[in-house]
Amino acid sequence: AANKKLLILPGDGIGPEVMGEVRRIIGWFERERGLGFDIEEDLVGGCAIDAYGVPLADKTLDLAMGADAVLLGAVGGPKWEPLPFEIRPERGLLKLRKEMQLYANLRPAIVFDELADASTLKHEVVAGLDILIIRELTGDLYFGTPRGVETLPDGTRRGVNTMVYTSPEVRRVAKIAFDLARKRGSKVCSVDKANVVETTEMWREEVIKLHGEGYEDIQLSHMYVDNAAMQLVRNPKQFDVIVTGNIFGDILSDEAAMLTGSLGMLPSASLGDPDESGRRRALYEPVHGSAPDITGQGIANPLATVLSFAMMLRYSFDMDAEAEMVEQAVRNVLKSGLRTGDIMQPGMAQVSTTVMGEAIVREL
Amino acid sequence: AANKKLLILPGDGIGPEVMGEVRRIIGWFERERGLGFDIEEDLVGGCAIDAYGVPLADKTLDLAMGADAVLLGAVGGPKWEPLPFEIRPERGLLKLRKEMQLYANLRPAIVFDELADASTLKHEVVAGLDILIIRELTGDLYFGTPRGVETLPDGTRRGVNTMVYTSPEVRRVAKIAFDLARKRGSKVCSVDKANVVETTEMWREEVIKLHGEGYEDIQLSHMYVDNAAMQLVRNPKQFDVIVTGNIFGDILSDEAAMLTGSLGMLPSASLGDPDESGRRRALYEPVHGSAPDITGQGIANPLATVLSFAMMLRYSFDMDAEAEMVEQAVRNVLKSGLRTGDIMQPGMAQVSTTVMGEAIVREL
Ligand SMILES: CC(C)[C@H](C(=O)O)[C@@H](O)C(=O)O
Ligand SMILES: CC(C)[C@H](C(=O)O)[C@@H](O)C(=O)O
Repeated sequence: AANKKLLILPGDGIGPEVMGEVRRIIGWFERERGLGFDIEEDLVGGCAIDAYGVPLADKTLDLAMGADAVLLGAVGGPKWEPLPFEIRPERGLLKLRKEMQLYANLRPAIVFDELADASTLKHEVVAGLDILIIRELTGDLYFGTPRGVETLPDGTRRGVNTMVYTSPEVRRVAKIAFDLARKRGSKVCSVDKANVVETTEMWREEVIKLHGEGYEDIQLSHMYVDNAAMQLVRNPKQFDVIVTGNIFGDILSDEAAMLTGSLGMLPSASLGDPDESGRRRALYEPVHGSAPDITGQGIANPLATVLSFAMMLRYSFDMDAEAEMVEQAVRNVLKSGLRTGDIMQPGMAQVSTTVMGEAIVREL
Repeated sequence: AANKKLLILPGDGIGPEVMGEVRRIIGWFERERGLGFDIEEDLVGGCAIDAYGVPLADKTLDLAMGADAVLLGAVGGPKWEPLPFEIRPERGLLKLRKEMQLYANLRPAIVFDELADASTLKHEVVAGLDILIIRELTGDLYFGTPRGVETLPDGTRRGVNTMVYTSPEVRRVAKIAFDLARKRGSKVCSVDKANVVETTEMWREEVIKLHGEGYEDIQLSHMYVDNAAMQLVRNPKQFDVIVTGNIFGDILSDEAAMLTGSLGMLPSASLGDPDESGRRRALYEPVHGSAPDITGQGIANPLATVLSFAMMLRYSFDMDAEAEMVEQAVRNVLKSGLRTGDIMQPGMAQVSTTVMGEAIVREL
C-alpha cells in the first residue's frame, strides 16, 4: 500500500510537547507494523502568525488539502490575544475547517473507569459514560453572512450575525450521526431550538426525513438545546449519539467534555466527504487547548492527542484493530497507575509527558 | 398606599395548582400585614389557545401592561405540540416578554443546604451555591430578522435567523448586572463568543465601557460561552453574577438550574425599565415547566412559584423584609422535613402541593 500522507500541525503552547509523543507512537507503528507514513510538519495559529504573518498560510492549507489526514495540537495563547479579530490564532483553525469542508466534528465524551472520580459529578452518574457528540462545523453563526458591527448616525452600534443552514448541510451531518450510531447504541438525539429558531425547525424536519429514508433501525429523538444542557447534567448516560449545529455543538460538547473531569483525555475528529478516490478530508485534534500555564514544563498530558491519532487510524485509514490497540494501551497505562499532573490521584505515580508517551509505546 | 395591581396568569399543566398556593400566601399578607393587592387573573399559553384561539390575547396583554407586576405559572403541554410555530403556547410567553420589554431575566441558581444532595454533582462542588444569571430577554436570535425558511428553485431549503444586538440593549442589561452584583459578591462575568461572533465582540466592548463609567468597584471578567458551559460544571462557585445574551443565557441558565438538582425550587424574574412614575414592568415565573406528567395530581412543588412571588416583593415593590420572610419560611419548611415528591429524600415527609403551601403560611 502507498504511504499515508500525514500533515502534523503542532501549533502553540503544549501542542509541540504532546505531538512529540504521537510521533513516538507513529515511529513504533512504522518499525513494528510496517506502516508507511509520509509526514510533513508546518505551523498553525500563533506560531504561524509569528513566522508567516497569518494564522494559516496558503502553503500550509495546500499541504492540508493534499494530505490523507491532518493531526493538530492546539492553537492560541496570551501573546496573540490582543490581536484584531481577523488575524487571531483561532482564525487559522476556522479557515482549515471551512476550506477542507470538515463539516462533521466528532467529540466523544468518555469516562475511563480509572478516572471516574475526577469528575465533579457523582460516580454513579458518570461511571461508564460513553457519548458521541457530532457537531456541524462549517455552517451556522460561525460563517453566516451578513455579519459585523456598524455604527449608526446617532452613535449606536449594531452587531449582526447570521445563523444559516441549508437542507443538504443538515442531511450530510445527520447521515454521519446515523451511520456512526449504528456501530454503537443505535440512538441519535438531535438537538435544536425548533420552538423559537426556524432554521433549527428546518434542521429537525430534515433529520426526521432522512431518518425515514433507511435509518428506521435507529432510535431518533429530539431535544431543545436548553433541555439538552440540563439533561447532560441530570443524566448524561441517557445519550448515545447527539447531533447538533455548530454553535450549540460548541457549547454542549464542551459541557459534556467537562462531565468527564478529564479534558486531557478527550480526542476529536473533524471529517469531510469522501472524494472520488474514497479519501475523506479529515483533521484530528485533542479537545484541550494550548495550556499556556504549563507550556514548556514537560508535564502536559499527551493522551488526548494519542487518542486523536487512534481516531485517525479508525476514521481515515480504516485500521480499527490498530486504533483499538492504541486505545487499549491507554487504558492499560492508566490501570498501571501512571498519571500526568492534570489527572493525578492519590496513590498513583505522577509522570512527565515523555514518560507517559514511552509507557504507551511499551504497552503497544 | 395604593393597592398593588397584580396580574396572575396560571397557564397550563401544574401552573394553576402551584399558583393556588401563592394566592394562599397573598391572602396571608393581606390579612396579617394589611398589604393591598388588586388581583386580576387571565389565560396564557395552551389554555388561551383553547379559549381565545391565540396564546396571548390582546386583552390579556393590556392587563399585563397595566399591572404593577405579572405572576405566571407555566405554559405548554403535549396537546398543543403539533400546532404550527406561530400559535404555539410559547409564543404567548415570547410576546409578553417583547411587548412588555422585559429585557433582563434574573435566574438565581441556589442550592438550599437541605437539598444539596439532590444534585448530580458532588456535595462539596455545589453546597452553598448561589449564582445569579442575568439573561438578556428581548433580543438575539429570538427576535432578529430576517428569519425563516425558504425553498430554492432546486428544492434545497435554506433557513436563516439573525442574531442582533445594539449597544444600548447591551448597556441596559449590563447595568442591571452591575447594580445587582453590588448587592451581592460584586463580581460580574460577562459571557460571549467574542472570538468568533462579532455581535458578541461588540457586547464585550460595551460591557467594558460601561464598567469604566462608575462600576470600577465591580470585579468584571469575560468568558467564552463554551468555556462557561464547562466552568459551570467544573466549579460553579467561582461565579457570582453572570450576564449574557438571550440564546446563550437560555442554555447556561438551564444548565446552572440543573446543577442545583432541584428545579422545583428555582424562581425567576424578568424586568423592564422603570417608567416616569418609577414603576418597572415585571414578570415573575418559576423555572420549571408545566409538567404534564404530574398535572392534576396535587403533588407539584409550589416553592419555585412561591419564591418567584418573593422576588416580586423585592424587585417590584421594594419589600425586602417581606421577601426575606417568604424565603426564610421556605428554608424553615425544608428544615422541618417537608418535601414534595420531586425533592423527596429518605427520612423526610412527602406532602402534597396544598400541605406545602399551608406549611409556608404557618411559618410566616
Ligand atoms: C477556538 C474556537 C474558534 C473554537 C470554536 O469555537 O469552534 C473552539 O472553541 C472549538 O470548539 O474548537
Ligand atoms: C419556552 C421557550 C420559548 C423559552 C425560551 O427559550 O426562552 C424557555 O426555554 C425559557 O427559557 O423561558
